[in-house]
Amino acid sequence: MKTYINEIKENDHVDSLFLVKEKSSAVTKTGNTYLKLKLVDRSGEIEGRIWTFVENVAESFEKDGFVHVMGKAVSFQERLQVNITSIESVREEEILFSDFFPMTEKDVDGKFQSLLEIGRQIKNPHLSQLLQLFWEDASFIELFKIAPASKWLHHNYLGGLLEHTLSVAQVVLRIASHYDGLNMDLLLTAAILHDLGKVDELSYHRSFDYSDEGRLLGHIILGIERVEDKIKQLPNFPKDLSTLLKHFLLSHHGQYIWGSPKKPMTLEAVMLHFLDDMDAKINGIQQFIKKEAPEGARWSAYHRMFEQYFYVSPPWEHIKLPDNIEKNVFEDE
Amino acid sequence: MKTYINEIKENDHVDSLFLVKEKSSAVTKTGNTYLKLKLVDRSGEIEGRIWTFVENVAESFEKDGFVHVMGKAVSFQERLQVNITSIESVREEEILFSDFFPMTEKDVDGKFQSLLEIGRQIKNPHLSQLLQLFWEDASFIELFKIAPASKWLHHNYLGGLLEHTLSVAQVVLRIASHYDGLNMDLLLTAAILHDLGKVDELSYHRSFDYSDEGRLLGHIILGIERVEDKIKQLPNFPKDLSTLLKHFLLSHHGQYIWGSPKKPMTLEAVMLHFLDDMDAKINGIQQFIKKEAPEGARWSAYHRMFEQYFYVSPPWEHIKLPDNIEKNVFEDE
Amino acid sequence: MKTYINEIKENDHVDSLFLVKEKSSAVTKTGNTYLKLKLVDRSGEIEGRIWTFVENVAESFEKDGFVHVMGKAVSFQERLQVNITSIESVREEEILFSDFFPMTEKDVDGKFQSLLEIGRQIKNPHLSQLLQLFWEDASFIELFKIAPASKWLHHNYLGGLLEHTLSVAQVVLRIASHYDGLNMDLLLTAAILHDLGKVDELSYHRSFDYSDEGRLLGHIILGIERVEDKIKQLPNFPKDLSTLLKHFLLSHHGQYIWGSPKKPMTLEAVMLHFLDDMDAKINGIQQFIKKEAPEGARWSAYHRMFEQYFYVSPPWEHIKLPDNIEKNVFEDE
Amino acid sequence: MKTYINEIKENDHVDSLFLVKEKSSAVTKTGNTYLKLKLVDRSGEIEGRIWTFVENVAESFEKDGFVHVMGKAVSFQERLQVNITSIESVREEEILFSDFFPMTEKDVDGKFQSLLEIGRQIKNPHLSQLLQLFWEDASFIELFKIAPASKWLHHNYLGGLLEHTLSVAQVVLRIASHYDGLNMDLLLTAAILHDLGKVDELSYHRSFDYSDEGRLLGHIILGIERVEDKIKQLPNFPKDLSTLLKHFLLSHHGQYIWGSPKKPMTLEAVMLHFLDDMDAKINGIQQFIKKEAPEGARWSAYHRMFEQYFYVSPPWEHIKLPDNIEKNVFEDE
Amino acid sequence: MKTYINEIKENDHVDSLFLVKEKSSAVTKTGNTYLKLKLVDRSGEIEGRIWTFVENVAESFEKDGFVHVMGKAVSFQERLQVNITSIESVREEEILFSDFFPMTEKDVDGKFQSLLEIGRQIKNPHLSQLLQLFWEDASFIELFKIAPASKWLHHNYLGGLLEHTLSVAQVVLRIASHYDGLNMDLLLTAAILHDLGKVDELSYHRSFDYSDEGRLLGHIILGIERVEDKIKQLPNFPKDLSTLLKHFLLSHHGQYIWGSPKKPMTLEAVMLHFLDDMDAKINGIQQFIKKEAPEGARWSAYHRMFEQYFYVSPPWEHIKLPDNIEKNVFEDE
Amino acid sequence: MKTYINEIKENDHVDSLFLVKEKSSAVTKTGNTYLKLKLVDRSGEIEGRIWTFVENVAESFEKDGFVHVMGKAVSFQERLQVNITSIESVREEEILFSDFFPMTEKDVDGKFQSLLEIGRQIKNPHLSQLLQLFWEDASFIELFKIAPASKWLHHNYLGGLLEHTLSVAQVVLRIASHYDGLNMDLLLTAAILHDLGKVDELSYHRSFDYSDEGRLLGHIILGIERVEDKIKQLPNFPKDLSTLLKHFLLSHHGQYIWGSPKKPMTLEAVMLHFLDDMDAKINGIQQFIKKEAPEGARWSAYHRMFEQYFYVSPPWEHIKLPDNIEKNVFEDE
Repeated sequence: MKTYINEIKENDHVDSLFLVKEKSSAVTKTGNTYLKLKLVDRSGEIEGRIWTFVENVAESFEKDGFVHVMGKAVSFQERLQVNITSIESVREEEILFSDFFPMTEKDVDGKFQSLLEIGRQIKNPHLSQLLQLFWEDASFIELFKIAPASKWLHHNYLGGLLEHTLSVAQVVLRIASHYDGLNMDLLLTAAILHDLGKVDELSYHRSFDYSDEGRLLGHIILGIERVEDKIKQLPNFPKDLSTLLKHFLLSHHGQYIWGSPKKPMTLEAVMLHFLDDMDAKINGIQQFIKKEAPEGARWSAYHRMFEQYFYVSPPWEHIKLPDNIEKNVFEDE
Repeated sequence: MKTYINEIKENDHVDSLFLVKEKSSAVTKTGNTYLKLKLVDRSGEIEGRIWTFVENVAESFEKDGFVHVMGKAVSFQERLQVNITSIESVREEEILFSDFFPMTEKDVDGKFQSLLEIGRQIKNPHLSQLLQLFWEDASFIELFKIAPASKWLHHNYLGGLLEHTLSVAQVVLRIASHYDGLNMDLLLTAAILHDLGKVDELSYHRSFDYSDEGRLLGHIILGIERVEDKIKQLPNFPKDLSTLLKHFLLSHHGQYIWGSPKKPMTLEAVMLHFLDDMDAKINGIQQFIKKEAPEGARWSAYHRMFEQYFYVSPPWEHIKLPDNIEKNVFEDE
Repeated sequence: MKTYINEIKENDHVDSLFLVKEKSSAVTKTGNTYLKLKLVDRSGEIEGRIWTFVENVAESFEKDGFVHVMGKAVSFQERLQVNITSIESVREEEILFSDFFPMTEKDVDGKFQSLLEIGRQIKNPHLSQLLQLFWEDASFIELFKIAPASKWLHHNYLGGLLEHTLSVAQVVLRIASHYDGLNMDLLLTAAILHDLGKVDELSYHRSFDYSDEGRLLGHIILGIERVEDKIKQLPNFPKDLSTLLKHFLLSHHGQYIWGSPKKPMTLEAVMLHFLDDMDAKINGIQQFIKKEAPEGARWSAYHRMFEQYFYVSPPWEHIKLPDNIEKNVFEDE
Repeated sequence: MKTYINEIKENDHVDSLFLVKEKSSAVTKTGNTYLKLKLVDRSGEIEGRIWTFVENVAESFEKDGFVHVMGKAVSFQERLQVNITSIESVREEEILFSDFFPMTEKDVDGKFQSLLEIGRQIKNPHLSQLLQLFWEDASFIELFKIAPASKWLHHNYLGGLLEHTLSVAQVVLRIASHYDGLNMDLLLTAAILHDLGKVDELSYHRSFDYSDEGRLLGHIILGIERVEDKIKQLPNFPKDLSTLLKHFLLSHHGQYIWGSPKKPMTLEAVMLHFLDDMDAKINGIQQFIKKEAPEGARWSAYHRMFEQYFYVSPPWEHIKLPDNIEKNVFEDE
Repeated sequence: MKTYINEIKENDHVDSLFLVKEKSSAVTKTGNTYLKLKLVDRSGEIEGRIWTFVENVAESFEKDGFVHVMGKAVSFQERLQVNITSIESVREEEILFSDFFPMTEKDVDGKFQSLLEIGRQIKNPHLSQLLQLFWEDASFIELFKIAPASKWLHHNYLGGLLEHTLSVAQVVLRIASHYDGLNMDLLLTAAILHDLGKVDELSYHRSFDYSDEGRLLGHIILGIERVEDKIKQLPNFPKDLSTLLKHFLLSHHGQYIWGSPKKPMTLEAVMLHFLDDMDAKINGIQQFIKKEAPEGARWSAYHRMFEQYFYVSPPWEHIKLPDNIEKNVFEDE
Repeated sequence: MKTYINEIKENDHVDSLFLVKEKSSAVTKTGNTYLKLKLVDRSGEIEGRIWTFVENVAESFEKDGFVHVMGKAVSFQERLQVNITSIESVREEEILFSDFFPMTEKDVDGKFQSLLEIGRQIKNPHLSQLLQLFWEDASFIELFKIAPASKWLHHNYLGGLLEHTLSVAQVVLRIASHYDGLNMDLLLTAAILHDLGKVDELSYHRSFDYSDEGRLLGHIILGIERVEDKIKQLPNFPKDLSTLLKHFLLSHHGQYIWGSPKKPMTLEAVMLHFLDDMDAKINGIQQFIKKEAPEGARWSAYHRMFEQYFYVSPPWEHIKLPDNIEKNVFEDE
């Protein structure tokens, strides 16, 4: 069974699985070589030291690999470290992914079914076929279900991309019929596909970071390439429908300064920009407050990116609400 | 019956009601004094000239007043003008407001009832009472029903403020329950009150412009003052509820640069900002396209404020949609 | 007698009053619970530790409360801390405020009298009565005399708001008559009232920070509310005078980007903006140099907010001035 | 005697002095060559036509020269023009400068004496000698007395530079002693010299525009060169005094974006920046209102540069002031 | 033979080819319908009127088509127009393109050969093959040779894209070897392909404007799609080479605000950005001066986009150069 | 022989030359005074302690002076420090400059000769004479050969200014003849002189920092002053040539926001701006990658100033290039 790093205490015997995030050799003041490791799991990180049989052991496992470690937790310069007595490489199949990475708490497969459901409402046969091609692309689906939506700002956990995509599509569904003259098929398709380039932009199998092509090209262009790839397989896909669809991906950040090479020029693209941005901000602020506001505090820490504090609303009763607000009280007009 | 200015042709006999927007005297090359008027109605404007009995007539009507004019349309330097033979002041009661000003095409009273309906869903007694005070304030209601939402950018017609307010409230209703932990009572109240200062910011009984206090103080502060006025009448209104409510008004533009002295700091204020902005943009673009895109064109004129063109989506069939999209196909999750 | 924290040395016996800024419990490696305190006074801060009778003692004083501490100063990991042997809660009346907070070195009451003096020169009866209402509001005066003018940037000490207000009013008096056509009564009243919302924006009884309503609404709006409150008590106060006066408060930051929801639109508001900004900057730079430039250095540290260094002018003699400049040499034209 | 252009009426006989701003030849539909002139004086501009003896006459006067014109005012396409029957070149000595250019209404020599007076209060012998060198430079003084302070924004009339310079120096005198620790000699010298490069930046003998070196180098650098020139003649002038003085010129616009290559880094330079900016803005707004607000209007036209309207304060009595405010009521502390 | 519009004079008999830019019907004051045309060629535009047989004639030619016109030039309200007596549609093959559109004065085929030449120096077989695919794509080459490089700013004439592309490639060749460690093959390929999306972004067969996909997607993305298309045909093309190459296209505008969704992240991309920008600016300024500076003037008109004037350097001799500078004096180090 | 600081290990006997960067006295817990030094050379810095004979020794050397130190390296709190047993002041002549400061790896004198060579190609006698005056100014040359080009961003080592200057001049030579109508003499002179003010802006004899006049005036103005000084010695130097030349210095940063008080207004100044910026960026990025990218990494650290990462291109072979690119393959058109 997994022992989480944040549960390890001084003098504990350690016997569990970890990911090796850093691995280097060093020399003691007395001239002996030893190995310094940084071991991580989803709860935190801890130093590991291998003092003996260094050369034999060094080859038996790799940086960014999973290992089975045994040893003893000791305190050194006020910090805990593990003096390792046994280390062994472990294959990816043997570990439980969610032991190692922050992961959505939601039901991934349920979320994905909901998204399929929404996609089925699209009547335009071209758009419908296009979506179908994505749903049949097993390697894409595998990535799409696990990718985070960003490294820092929002939905920054495994499964976050799916969660954000579904949320935007649901919000679009709720709102779009309120306005006349919007092309719902286009809007829904775009909502579902707008961020799909993120499966390639980020690397998230060992740690969250940008991939090379993520940094050099970005999810907007990577997404357009994936869409273009599928459209190529649909010989009758209309040219202007393709142009309009790609315009959503290009413009969904809304402004040049936020990395969109085009501003939204259709009503539908304007709407997607606002709803995407709103969904990301709301999730981002909720995550930030969860992490960066002490229990009971009214104010979060300072958010450097947004250059502000956030107010943690007190529970409603605090301001003398007679009874709870029930969601189902509110129905559409 | 009203003859609209854009229907007048050369040599027509003119006999109708107009608003006098400008009035000045001038001298012909031969030394005779005459009166130059600018006559307007909702369809456009036309020059009027009074050549005889100038002094007698000049006193009988006023700039910014309504008049009954008779005369003949002639062409002078390629433009039509009316040589006036009779002019008479007319009282406001005798005119039909919508003959003179752009006006919402929607049912104002129906819209107002819908807003009342939404307000009734608010359960917090303080907020509910606060709204009630506004609904009981007849002079406010009169303004609120007729005010435009802005001079240029969106809902820039009589009744526009109510239309925008209701639309934002409805969108809030549709979306808010999608996210956990939002205070619906606060959000709905804020949606209803967020722009109420516009009843004072603009003057809109003769022409659309900013009032003095509108320019010097702006609708954000004017709105806060109206809210504060009502809250004063509710002795038990909680202080922090009042602060949170006013924060919505202050922050709904979202950024300093857009005239908000505070950025939104609560989840609810963040959401209101996005939905308010989206609603205004969508209406603004729709109005702009209606006015500034030639029939059948794919592109609007250049929008100076937004520094871009807008694409006028072709009808869906154009891109080979098998059958029309029906709104009711889409239902909430 | 107060022992200041920056005077405590290793092995000193400590016996003095402090403010408890932080208070938490921790566990030694050997499993014993102890209390960690952060004790502060105006000279600095020091760690305090309570090792024994932890549970009994913990209830006897509070975070943000004043305490009488006895103990011994010891060195731990290169830093001093106090091993506390006795701690006792002390009421606010027993402490000397200026022992704990940075405080103006100027004579607060003298400053206040000077401000009253300036106010008396205002002849417009409405403005004069308005000021009078503020001077008669004892709870306001109490705050107004002690509030700082800002958390960081300028006059960031108790009494700073009064000091800044008086300074701006004096500068206005010196300059305004130089220009024709300025409304001196309005300008002086605005100078006196422009920052009054700061009494509510900041909390400054235990530490300098923003209050909740300070963060959510800001001193501009809080000031307008206080002004509006008083004007309500003056039934004949002219509407446009009230609008003009509030415009000063709204616009005194000068630009949207600096938090003003309106730019200054009257000559008087333009002038107040410049003089307020200048006064704040000069004080801010002087404070910064005093704190952040080593004795004798020609350059201050880097000022992150202003993104620059400041030059510390050498004494005049250094550049071979024959004799000192006497202030009274300079007289107005 | 001068007949001003804005006084000429149809059929008037014209006999007066003008400046020839434009001069070109054209051909009538019937193939005859004629001369088209643009004649200007300080009241406006008018077209002139020479129909006969074109070739003989064309050589007898020059563009940008003054001429004595006789002819008749006729109306052509709704606009007045002068059919010229006699035109003769006139030397600069024969004209009255103020007939042709906007000019300060103040007493130029009196203003200059006031500036000398202020300069005399400077005790530092180096700065005092430096000023003396400028006062002894007759060709500089001639330019300095007549130059405008800018082409558009403020003090945009002959004598405007002197007027602005004196005003800034006077304001500095009024304020500076209010703050401790300012170097008055340096501040006054800088106030007097800060804009002197404008004598070279603008060309203002025939029309207001930028000179070539004005556009390519700007008044900041041109001013530094004039200061450096004089300092070179003072062998003992201290290097760091020179550096500090030039820093004022370089930084007085306050920000990179406003054309200052350095931000103000000394207290004195910070103050000069604010007072210079304030003085320019106040004059600029006053000029703008005088020109761009209709008599009696509460609002100026829209100021494109400042992106706002200005409010034209009503006379004080309007808001029920009991008696006039007298300047001398206000005295320094 | 072509008669150019700017050569037509009153009463001329007109007999030449034109492009019909606008075509509408109107009604005379006497109630007769007539046709209003706007006729253009590369020298300008002129109104045309068809007064008789309107209905018969109206169908015989189209807006945006070429026509053979006969008629008479008359003057109406100070402007010339052609009263058309005969009009006939003309096929594109019968006209000389350069009679109708601004066109490069350079030798297009020679330029294209030079570009091929440069391409041949690329040794990397993948990049070399990629270029080859473009050179073999006849429909691309046809567009590439005729497309302008922009609508307004630089190389805004037929053939401008090729001219700019060659110029950038040549400048890259001249400079790149000066710096160590640059990948010349990649840099040259990128220089040749960086703007190729402009063949699709602009429409330039009848008038210069953006195409629908140009406005909605932009030349950056359109270029990437063309590159991706070709790469797909090269099965062994390395993935990271493809990523690096596309990064050039994405980042060549240098900054988000200038429409690049990525900043240049490789040395080569940084260099291409600077050289592309420099080449465009130099050509743009040269075109602007040619068009917007009067003969002999030292200053161009004000350039709204760049917000400045440009100085038209006087010929060198003017500043007393002893003899001409010969280009070949300068040789590389 | 010099022992470099980064080679010193625990227990080493130290006997070498260092620069004393900081020097202060402190007191041990037992009350004894000792000296704390910071010793530096070009490889790093190390603490030094003097425990005995403190008062005698303290006077024998100075902060910012070179010293000969003997002692022993010991470890204290995980860091090395030198317990000094002997310290002695050393004159500047006795040290090897490059032991102490980062220095160009290029041949300074060779670089300087290349620059002279380029200068000789200038034919305009005025510009040629002007350069000559600089080359004859020995004290200038001494500084010019050793000055760095900036404190942080690029060529931030001794000799960097010369290296950058030569590089820009060479690039200008390579490119300029590609464009028609450029004044090569002016461009080359400007390339050589554009940054010369940096000899005064930075202080670089003991550490790299800004000099007082560097901070207060900046290299742009300091350079103009040096140029102006020399031009004064050439009585026939044409005024407009001088203006044009100084315009290059003023405008070479390209934008107000980057510290240029003028934007480039001539074609030549536009070109110099781009090539100077490109050369600085390329060197800056190369230095940054060398220092801030781990061996073998594809990405540099985050560059705070440029707000981005840089990609470290893999060696060409990696992407299967058949053979090396030889520089001389590429020749000018």
